[in-house]
Amino acid sequence: MIISTDRARRPSDFNRQQVRIKGDRFCPFCAGHETKTPPEVLAFRPAGQPNSPGWTLRAVPNKFPALRVEGDIERQGEGLYDRMNGVGAHEVIIESPDHNDTLASMSEVRVADLFFAVRDRINDLARDPRLRYMLVFKNHGEGAGATLEHTHTQLIALPIVPKRVHEEIAGARRYYEFRDRCVYCDIIQQEIATATRVIISTEHFLVIAPYASSFPFECWILPRRHSAHFHTTPPEAIHNLGWVVRTIAAKYDKTLESPPYNFVLHTTPIREGELEHYHWHIEIAPKLTRVAGFEWGSSFFINPTPPEEAAQFLREANPD
Amino acid sequence: MIISTDRARRPSDFNRQQVRIKGDRFCPFCAGHETKTPPEVLAFRPAGQPNSPGWTLRAVPNKFPALRVEGDIERQGEGLYDRMNGVGAHEVIIESPDHNDTLASMSEVRVADLFFAVRDRINDLARDPRLRYMLVFKNHGEGAGATLEHTHTQLIALPIVPKRVHEEIAGARRYYEFRDRCVYCDIIQQEIATATRVIISTEHFLVIAPYASSFPFECWILPRRHSAHFHTTPPEAIHNLGWVVRTIAAKYDKTLESPPYNFVLHTTPIREGELEHYHWHIEIAPKLTRVAGFEWGSSFFINPTPPEEAAQFLREANPD
Repeated sequence: MIISTDRARRPSDFNRQQVRIKGDRFCPFCAGHETKTPPEVLAFRPAGQPNSPGWTLRAVPNKFPALRVEGDIERQGEGLYDRMNGVGAHEVIIESPDHNDTLASMSEVRVADLFFAVRDRINDLARDPRLRYMLVFKNHGEGAGATLEHTHTQLIALPIVPKRVHEEIAGARRYYEFRDRCVYCDIIQQEIATATRVIISTEHFLVIAPYASSFPFECWILPRRHSAHFHTTPPEAIHNLGWVVRTIAAKYDKTLESPPYNFVLHTTPIREGELEHYHWHIEIAPKLTRVAGFEWGSSFFINPTPPEEAAQFLREANPD
Repeated sequence: MIISTDRARRPSDFNRQQVRIKGDRFCPFCAGHETKTPPEVLAFRPAGQPNSPGWTLRAVPNKFPALRVEGDIERQGEGLYDRMNGVGAHEVIIESPDHNDTLASMSEVRVADLFFAVRDRINDLARDPRLRYMLVFKNHGEGAGATLEHTHTQLIALPIVPKRVHEEIAGARRYYEFRDRCVYCDIIQQEIATATRVIISTEHFLVIAPYASSFPFECWILPRRHSAHFHTTPPEAIHNLGWVVRTIAAKYDKTLESPPYNFVLHTTPIREGELEHYHWHIEIAPKLTRVAGFEWGSSFFINPTPPEEAAQFLREANPD
């Protein structure tokens, strides 16, 4: 990653695509439209029948999945090439019945519910022995790849461990073999000592602008206590995570005028035990720059905003 | 990479950002504005003085570089982290003095000139012993990351070999160690035999929609004769490359209504010899889909258009 200080940019320098909820099309995720999605696999519903109104959160299979749960995994060769069929699951967690909600406008309790739902869906899907990794991510706003504007998070359960996950865990393993310590635990200690890149510090989490961030205003949410698997997080920490994520979303809205953003949950493959060398965390970044030929060709990213400056802007942003 | 046939999409299904040249701002790349760029490092100019009109192609340092050539490479630690300063070069090759030109509208001779200029700049920069890799790429259209609309290609010379390049060459080396053959030479043979993914076939090049393409309508331009380094390509092949690249650009414009696109030259690090296991090539892809949370978290890409279908559309597109 390249921090390009010749191009250093403050929040106001980015040519942003502000996320505005238009509500001008029929929305299958709104309350009252429950029959327009596949039947729910999970709901938090204080009252009422399944697949009817009364819910505060709903998880449903994606109507246009990238992968399906049916079928066995088949691997076959085609000359030089290998192929396997796309067994897996693709689910959508709708965090609110209200079309106008965002993570920043919802209460911390409702944002925590998203993470309780993620935990529950991972636990349920883990029972399928074909599945190896649950990738959880959010695309907020069209600029960040959302095709429906109603707030939702996606879970794709895969029959293989994705390359990026494999590489990250392998890197952490090499660090551990050398030093006998978790690299993320070491980062937490060093960031607390340095302080310049810390954005939020709570009982359960540290939020930092990571050293050598790939993207301007990128944040990592790190649980303070070592833990390889997200889905074993205790309830009190999940409650705290709701506040943390809501606060970052609100700080983004305030500092960067409601930018599109993505987050990705980085956790351990479901068949692995409690690894000492890997530490689950969430990476979140606003979509302020375009990925173009340079990034495609190099896997390097040019970041015009040093993380220390991004951290200061986000620390000082006080949403209501 | 995931080919998602549930989402199979024909050219007309993509929500495209058509590239239209507006010409509504002052352009430092236009003929007559030569003093608005840093002095040229190369020009093809049938008549006239340096840094004045009369040129057909000009290469200049980027005014806002991601990296600079000044200074020594310094590496230092910061606690856990490593940093090195950004020594390197960032140049722009302006392929036409005419603001309205694109690779598709220019003559094949002028497009070939781009690749002669790339060859010459690589040879010149190779004399700087600090530089290890020359990354050449084009961002066509704002949707593909171009910040100036006047046609140009970029060259970033780096003091390290980028991760993506390193991985690709390492993968090719493993294949070679196992089979004693270049994987790209094998791909060329298999694609000619299969035929379904071939788009263009000339004396010097094969253009295919690669098996398991990451992006819809992605193409690879492969030189038929094994060669590790682009900059040793003989002139007759570079002339032919001008026709090939112009034709693909025109086929994209015809099939996909002038989409934004990127291309990246994949070549061997400059300090390496003539590797038997690596084969230079160009990867080119229109920007039709957004990279979102899933791709960020997994390094997998969901491609809604099987390469066999993309190849058929592009083969059948007959630009004037």
